[in-house]
Amino acid sequence: MASPEITQLIQALSRLPGLGPRSARRTVLHLLKKRESTLRPLIRALSDVDAAMVECAACGNIDTQNPCGLCADPRRRKDSLCVVEDVSDLWALDKAGAFDGQFHVLGGTLSPLDGIGPEDLRLDSLVQRAGAAEVTEVVLALSSTVDGQTTAHYVQDRLEGLDLRITSVAQGVPVGGELDYLDDGTLLQAMRARRPFDTPNA
Amino acid sequence: MASPEITQLIQALSRLPGLGPRSARRTVLHLLKKRESTLRPLIRALSDVDAAMVECAACGNIDTQNPCGLCADPRRRKDSLCVVEDVSDLWALDKAGAFDGQFHVLGGTLSPLDGIGPEDLRLDSLVQRAGAAEVTEVVLALSSTVDGQTTAHYVQDRLEGLDLRITSVAQGVPVGGELDYLDDGTLLQAMRARRPFDTPNA
Repeated sequence: MASPEITQLIQALSRLPGLGPRSARRTVLHLLKKRESTLRPLIRALSDVDAAMVECAACGNIDTQNPCGLCADPRRRKDSLCVVEDVSDLWALDKAGAFDGQFHVLGGTLSPLDGIGPEDLRLDSLVQRAGAAEVTEVVLALSSTVDGQTTAHYVQDRLEGLDLRITSVAQGVPVGGELDYLDDGTLLQAMRARRPFDTPNA
Repeated sequence: MASPEITQLIQALSRLPGLGPRSARRTVLHLLKKRESTLRPLIRALSDVDAAMVECAACGNIDTQNPCGLCADPRRRKDSLCVVEDVSDLWALDKAGAFDGQFHVLGGTLSPLDGIGPEDLRLDSLVQRAGAAEVTEVVLALSSTVDGQTTAHYVQDRLEGLDLRITSVAQGVPVGGELDYLDDGTLLQAMRARRPFDTPNA
C-alpha cells in the first residue's frame, strides 16, 4: 500500500524525539490532508533554518550569525564563562535570564559507554578561552547526572593551574518543588548544603 | 534569543498532531545538531512526498498514481463499495486485508458544530458510484461515534432508491478485548447483537 516516498518520510519522522512509527504515519496523513497549511510551510521553515543557522565558532551556540548574538553582545560580562552540555541548556539559561556572561557549549558529556571521549567535546577551546586574562570565573552548569558530574570533574582537572574560581550551579530543592515528591539524592544534597535562613546567596 | 527562522519552524512543528511547543523546540535542536542525518533527509522526504502523492479522483485515496493502486487493481471486486471517513481508515482496512472491493473516502464526517455539512464531503460522487450497474453492496465503515453514525444515517438516506444492499461493519467486543475493560455502550451493543455460538458469520 504505502509508496516508497511515504515509507521514507515515515522513517525520517520516526527519527525525531517523541515520534514513533505509529504517530509518524498519522503525521504523514495529517500533512497530506492539508498541504497548503501544513506540509509546504513545514518544508519552507525547515529549509530556512537549514540555510540560516550556523554554529558560533567561539561558544558553540547555534544562531543566524557567527559569532552568535550572545558572544557579540558588548553588554555581557567577559570575566565569567558558563560551561553547558548542549545548546538547549544555553537557551534555557538565557531564557531564564540566569547568566549575563559568556557561554561555552561542550557538545555533550563524557560517556565511555557511548564512545564519547574528551576529544569529542569542545574542551581544548574551553581551556583556551578560560586562560584568557579577563576570565576570572568558570561556572559549571552541567546535568546532575553521573555523566554530567563526571564531565564536571574532568573539566575541573583540565582547568587546573589556571588562576580561576571554578563554581557549579547549586543543587537542592527546585523552586515550586514539594519535598515528598523529591528523590533521596536531591533531599540528601539539599540537607547537606543547607545554609542560614534569610541570608541572601553569596 | 530565538531567530525568526527558529520561531517559524517551532510554529510549523507545533501544528503537527502530538507535538506541543516544548517538544517542537526540542525537535528543532535535535534537527540542528545532526543536520546531515536528520534535517536534510527530512526536507528531502517531505518534498518527495509533496511532489509524488496525488489524490485519486475516483475514491479519494492518496497514492503516487491517479487512479490509485487500489482502484486500478483488476483483481479487486467491482460489486462492493466500502465507505470510510478518511484515508487513514482506508489504509488500516487495506493493511488488515479486511476488504477486497472498491473504497470511497468521504473526507470526514458531518459535524454541524465544526461547520462541516454534506457539501464538504464526497457525497455526490459516492451516490454516482453507488448507482453504477455493477455495484450491489455499500459497506459503511464509519466510526462508532455520534458524528460517524449521524453520517452513516445521512449516507443511507442519500442512497435510498438505489437497488443496493447497505451494510455496516459489526459493533461488539474487539478481538483481544476483555469485557471488564469495555465501556457500557460497547457491552450493550455486543449483547444486543448476540448470535448463535459456533456459527460462521453470514
